[in-house]
Parts: sequence; C-alpha cells; structure tokens
Amino acid sequence: MPATEKNDRYRPDMVPVRFAAGAGGSWRILTISAVRGDSLPHAARLDRSEGRTAADVPAVWTVRGVTSHVRYVERPEKAALEAVQPVLGRVQAVRAALIPIRKTAGWWALPQDERREIFERRSQHIATGLRYLPAVARRLYHSRELGEPFDFLTWFEYSEADAPAFEELVSRLRETEEWRYVDREVDVRLMRDI
Amino acid sequence: MPATEKNDRYRPDMVPVRFAAGAGGSWRILTISAVRGDSLPHAARLDRSEGRTAADVPAVWTVRGVTSHVRYVERPEKAALEAVQPVLGRVQAVRAALIPIRKTAGWWALPQDERREIFERRSQHIATGLRYLPAVARRLYHSRELGEPFDFLTWFEYSEADAPAFEELVSRLRETEEWRYVDREVDVRLMRDI
Repeated sequence: MPATEKNDRYRPDMVPVRFAAGAGGSWRILTISAVRGDSLPHAARLDRSEGRTAADVPAVWTVRGVTSHVRYVERPEKAALEAVQPVLGRVQAVRAALIPIRKTAGWWALPQDERREIFERRSQHIATGLRYLPAVARRLYHSRELGEPFDFLTWFEYSEADAPAFEELVSRLRETEEWRYVDREVDVRLMRDI
Repeated sequence: MPATEKNDRYRPDMVPVRFAAGAGGSWRILTISAVRGDSLPHAARLDRSEGRTAADVPAVWTVRGVTSHVRYVERPEKAALEAVQPVLGRVQAVRAALIPIRKTAGWWALPQDERREIFERRSQHIATGLRYLPAVARRLYHSRELGEPFDFLTWFEYSEADAPAFEELVSRLRETEEWRYVDREVDVRLMRDI
C-alpha cells in the first residue's frame, strides 16, 4: 500500500500540494521577487495542484508541501481563526501570492516556548493575520521535513479591491522580530484567468 | 541539485534514518509486539541506517523518519536534556528498542498549548524520560510529514543492566494521558551482535 493511501485514511489534515511554474496552470505569474536570498526563475504560469494526484509536470521549478497541524496556535486563536477563515477559490479572489520562506538554523534550534514567544507575543503573527481575514484567504504548507529548499509555502488569495490590504499584511509581517529569522524568501504574484 | 544536498547545507538538525527489517543489519530482532493496532511482520534482523545514503534495501518492512527541531521542549528542559543525553552506540548498550507510534487525528487537531499541556504538565513525558538518562539513550525521528504509516519512530539503546529501567520507562509512559492519543504502537526489541 503506497504511503499516500495510508495518509488519506489516517491524516485528513495532511493535504499535499505541488506548485509547478512553467507553461501551464490557471494562474498567470505577474512577478517573482527575491525578498531575501536567492530568487526563483521566471515562468509564464503557475499550476497549483492539491491532493494525492499532484504528479510532477514539466516545469521551470516545482515546490512541494503538505498542510499539517498547527505549531504555535493556541485554543482561543484557533477558534478565532476558524470563525473567519474563508475558503480558497472565491470568485472575486482573482489575485494570489505564493510566498516560500526558509528560516535560519538558529530559529530551529530555539526551544518551543521561545519560538512561540517571538512568533506571537513579540511579532503578533497570528493577530496580524487575523486582522486581514476574511479579505485575504491563506493556506500554509509545510516543506521542511520533505527535504524541500523552503520550510514553508504560504498561498494567499484576495480580490483586486483587497490588494492594498494584502500589501499592508506582508509588509507588517516583514517588519517583525520573527522575520529576522527568515533567511530566504521569494514573493510570487499571480492573477487568475477570468 | 537534489533536495538532500540542500538539506545537508541548511538543516544540520535534520538527519534521515531508514530502518529495514530483513536478513541484514547489526541488530538481531528478539521480539515484535503490537502494543496497539496492527503489528509489523517478524524478521531476523534490523538494519538502521542514518544519513543521506540510507538507500532502500530488500526488506520485510522498512520505516523512515528524520530528526527535527523540538516540538514541546522549553528552555530549561532543553538545557537539562542536553546536559545528560548520551550518544548512541555506547559499547555497553547491547540492547535496543525501536518503537514506532501513530497518534489519533484528535491529537493532531488540538491546538499547540493543549498538546503541550497533555504532553508535559499532565503526562510528564519529558520529566519521565529525563529520569532514565543517561542509562537509556534515545533518538526521536519524525515520520508524519513523510507520509509514513507512523508519526514517530523512537530508538532506544541501553545495557543489559539497565533493561529493567527501560521496561519501567516505557510502562510509565504508556500509563499517561498522552498515550490515550496513541492509536498504533509497535515495540521491536533488539540485541546487538557482540
């Protein structure tokens, strides 16, 4: 039995994703910017495929991840997030961003309580994200354990009208103490075919 | 560049492991017991291979994992663990156990603070493990994100003289509230060729 079938059965929270930048996919790539560290090469389109059937396709670059359990979120935050988190694929959400990041070895060497302290009490990562919900839909994928070049892939979807709010959200996060532990970040902006 | 090379460079804390049960390897399998859920088939020997070169070998069964950053350990606990954690491969440690476990979907749906509460304040997982250090050497591998059948693989090494202490350690952990969230556990006991 392939590992993916086992996952289907026991791990409903773990959904694999494959982002392939190349000639295909329903998202047109507008820009690819290196925020920190090396960028990713440009391509025309991005194919986002979620689920067990995300096979490799010919691509300029491919990144993979998997949804997983929360790592820092506490009970009241979980309830607050679940109350306002929108679904992906809303008709008006024609803009998207894929932001792969990698954190430093120093970050990962910190104990759990110190990472939580930086992540939320000093950087307000969760509280800041909440302020832009439901305008900016967001899905986090974990890549670190997969041996991928990034630790996380975050996927955002928003409408034209909410584009300024999205810019504000990412710029606030990049000013935080947490972001000092980011040693590679690429920002891919996209527009859906409509 | 293969993903494993990227990992070597940026993720010194992440060491892959492959356990293959079959005809080879330096550990003789004494018993394989299902503590909860399905067991694993019997085999004569276990081959434990750590690092990037852990290729597949012919085997009755193979499980894989990767070392990673701590998920619940706080600063004082980290310091206490690092002060007494022995290395693997001690000459006198001729006994070993490989204990793969899987936790329930309910466990993974809990927020971080509630998992920590159950894990340490109510179940004293870290404190209990500490009490048996340095007698029982221990290494934890994460398997969940790899799509493996188990969430964790824990590898223990101890001397003949410390075998009773090891039995006490595992039986204490299995009595905890945390263990109510374990829905599959296999216990593989081994002896090294000396």
